[in-house]
Amino acid sequence: MDGFERLDAPAEALPAASVTGTLYGVGMGPGDPDLLTVKAQRILMRAPVLVHFCKRGKRGNARTIADAILRDPDRELALAYPYTTEIHPEHPDYVAALAGFYDDAAGRLADHLGAGRDVAILSEGDPFFYGSFMHLWRRLKDRFPVEVIPGVTGMSGCWTRAGTPITWGDDVLTVLPATLSLDILTERLRGTDAAVVMKLGRHLPKVRAALAEAGLLARAVYVERGTMAGERVVMLADKADDAAPYFSMVLLPGEGRRP
Amino acid sequence: MDGFERLDAPAEALPAASVTGTLYGVGMGPGDPDLLTVKAQRILMRAPVLVHFCKRGKRGNARTIADAILRDPDRELALAYPYTTEIHPEHPDYVAALAGFYDDAAGRLADHLGAGRDVAILSEGDPFFYGSFMHLWRRLKDRFPVEVIPGVTGMSGCWTRAGTPITWGDDVLTVLPATLSLDILTERLRGTDAAVVMKLGRHLPKVRAALAEAGLLARAVYVERGTMAGERVVMLADKADDAAPYFSMVLLPGEGRRP
Repeated sequence: MDGFERLDAPAEALPAASVTGTLYGVGMGPGDPDLLTVKAQRILMRAPVLVHFCKRGKRGNARTIADAILRDPDRELALAYPYTTEIHPEHPDYVAALAGFYDDAAGRLADHLGAGRDVAILSEGDPFFYGSFMHLWRRLKDRFPVEVIPGVTGMSGCWTRAGTPITWGDDVLTVLPATLSLDILTERLRGTDAAVVMKLGRHLPKVRAALAEAGLLARAVYVERGTMAGERVVMLADKADDAAPYFSMVLLPGEGRRP
Repeated sequence: MDGFERLDAPAEALPAASVTGTLYGVGMGPGDPDLLTVKAQRILMRAPVLVHFCKRGKRGNARTIADAILRDPDRELALAYPYTTEIHPEHPDYVAALAGFYDDAAGRLADHLGAGRDVAILSEGDPFFYGSFMHLWRRLKDRFPVEVIPGVTGMSGCWTRAGTPITWGDDVLTVLPATLSLDILTERLRGTDAAVVMKLGRHLPKVRAALAEAGLLARAVYVERGTMAGERVVMLADKADDAAPYFSMVLLPGEGRRP
């Protein structure tokens, strides 16, 4: 472990570099700061610019994970999504708003990188697994050095805290966004041994219906805020309401070979 | 970070406890020791008994990952598989041999746990994701306290090093053991947006055929020893031979929404 020496050094105290900075995509893990990797922790302590995504007026989830080790807001750059949750994610207006947001954010990061400052983007879970990071990476990867640090995924954190292995032997695992249609969800659930359903939000009633239709509801586990404060693990069939916050998912553990 | 104080203390120097020890399943990550979590590292430094699986006469892969931080072989317990690779994994003789091996190993760990010694099982990747750990966990979890520490999976390490996000937007990800039949592999590959094919071994020609049949061979990436020394990343179509060591997999990156 190194990097401690710079923990409280303000960004402006670092020497100006004659070369460009490196863009880091830092996997922040599932929530518990103890599940950061050694490498992620080192980069978080060192990088002069720490970027996180958030909703307007709120702190970002990835940033909250870093609370345990970061105490210098001078290094922080918050990127507030142009949230328009009333619009369907495939609606042209929404896509255009997001594209503009990512273009603008990439420009801001490019200014730092061009001035020789390393930029670390805090990414919930693993940066290359359904992450907003990828949209900035795509815009910057051909202009600046990039390093991605994989992280423990939210789903690993959830099945661990649920106390259930997800795959045994030759089990097939399918990871499904809850945004898919009822028919597609049902078909995919029927055709797999194990499943993780992500991005629940307002789609939980549909996910419940798909599991019931596939005859799998009794095996499904609901996990909320896995590895974090306020964690909740319950069989989905026993969950009375259909509220599902951002950090929640449904697990269908496999039942494969167990010698 | 704590735990350093016990780093070089031999197991017998620890005080005898009046309560049972805790069984830890420690996710060792994809290979690079810098990708251990802070929590995994702490437990590795502390636990008086460190268990790893291996083939007869060889060091285990999970144990090799720990080389960077462990220097006290007195704490180690190696469990050598009764490897009979000529027998099909579903053959009754093989299942019986494995079951006997796990029963015996669980008995040895129970002796340590019953004597109050914590036992840490080093598990490649994430312990609850296709891990041998689960077979000991299943035999011991109702008798002793258990804590599982999720890890960065081998597949996260591989797609990171391949420099390719695996899932975008609403992509469905399917994780497939290469041990499945050609027909099933082909069907599953056809019906997904993104895929990871694990456990390649001697099955690589079949995986290649399934990808070609599904019209996906041109998109497939082969990764060997991701995050480790000797790492190799190549488009599968450009890989001339069919050799695939233990630490290898095939990735089919998703092509979902990119605002």
